[in-house]
Amino acid sequence: MRLRNVKNANAIVNSSVYTIVNPEEHKGHFKELFNNDNPLHIEIGMGKGDFIIGMAKKYPNINFIGIEKYESVMVRAIQKVDGIELPNLKLICMDAKTINEVFDHEVDTLYLNFSDPWPKTRHAKRRLTSDLFLKLYDDIFINNPHIIQKTDNIGLFAYSLSSLSMYGYTLINVSLDLANTEIPNVITEYESKFMALGTKINYLEAVKYNK
Amino acid sequence: MRLRNVKNANAIVNSSVYTIVNPEEHKGHFKELFNNDNPLHIEIGMGKGDFIIGMAKKYPNINFIGIEKYESVMVRAIQKVDGIELPNLKLICMDAKTINEVFDHEVDTLYLNFSDPWPKTRHAKRRLTSDLFLKLYDDIFINNPHIIQKTDNIGLFAYSLSSLSMYGYTLINVSLDLANTEIPNVITEYESKFMALGTKINYLEAVKYNK
Repeated sequence: MRLRNVKNANAIVNSSVYTIVNPEEHKGHFKELFNNDNPLHIEIGMGKGDFIIGMAKKYPNINFIGIEKYESVMVRAIQKVDGIELPNLKLICMDAKTINEVFDHEVDTLYLNFSDPWPKTRHAKRRLTSDLFLKLYDDIFINNPHIIQKTDNIGLFAYSLSSLSMYGYTLINVSLDLANTEIPNVITEYESKFMALGTKINYLEAVKYNK
Repeated sequence: MRLRNVKNANAIVNSSVYTIVNPEEHKGHFKELFNNDNPLHIEIGMGKGDFIIGMAKKYPNINFIGIEKYESVMVRAIQKVDGIELPNLKLICMDAKTINEVFDHEVDTLYLNFSDPWPKTRHAKRRLTSDLFLKLYDDIFINNPHIIQKTDNIGLFAYSLSSLSMYGYTLINVSLDLANTEIPNVITEYESKFMALGTKINYLEAVKYNK
């Protein structure tokens, strides 16, 4: 997602209490940043933050970190939490390609919501569920790797199902129509638009059990 | 699938050269029935047979057996091959529940096309990809268990994905829009109706690798 350039995005992002400016410095020690032993859930590609903010409000005993590549997008999430106190939420502006330079065996759950589908086959490796990324993720999880994905894109979803399965993940929960399930959900900004159009949301929950 | 009672269905089914009347007698020896060493592919729930007949024509070096529960449906398949010579095709009228009483480590690939979705949760065990059936299938395969499923039903498809994955299958190929892929396909009678309506066909190919 790209937005028009937001004036002073850089200054707003870097001055927010929610922003972790130098995330590499906390590598392996994010518990200390939150000052508790609660599990850590992260979202790669949080966009304007509706999901991760909603989750942080709903689950105060879980620590959440939202990751977004573009400052001009992340600033929208920061504006949403401005003046609100959510001690279990932090945000990082970074590229997912360096995720294993920031987290070291300390993440419990990874959320991938409405990620870029990169529809062309020659771009498949850029999809956040390609084996290239799955390999990076191996080093960020503390327990069994645990990924939850939502997407309206059937190409990305089909790719993710087989990519995760072939990498050794077990698909413990799958739906091709999330709205008509009992699965707990926090609606993202994209999702509400798609739901209004009648587009079905695909959902998967995958765990990689240690052999 | 149930059809109006076809007059003499029983007589037509039992007198066809395509029908294996006492399949249990060939258990473990289907190669001898076909009189060659070609791989054996079976379809459970062949309906009126468009898929299995199409496959038998397309792949003469593979042996095919179509299985259908109802004589009144199977008779339609028999009528379609009446007068045609397809030495690599046989048909069985039986309930899938007893599949392991008929095949013993001799099937290479199992096709499940547009199976009954049994949408109610209390009927989940009746779905042909429930762990109850997957356990039966374990004994019919000669090599790594290999299942290919097509369905328009998103509930059954989501269920199959996680059921197969949790049972130990790897999803080596998945599509939520089969018509827009390069996957080789033989259109079934149901499928052509759905395609005409613009309904997308879901496809999965799963293999259980020996540990």
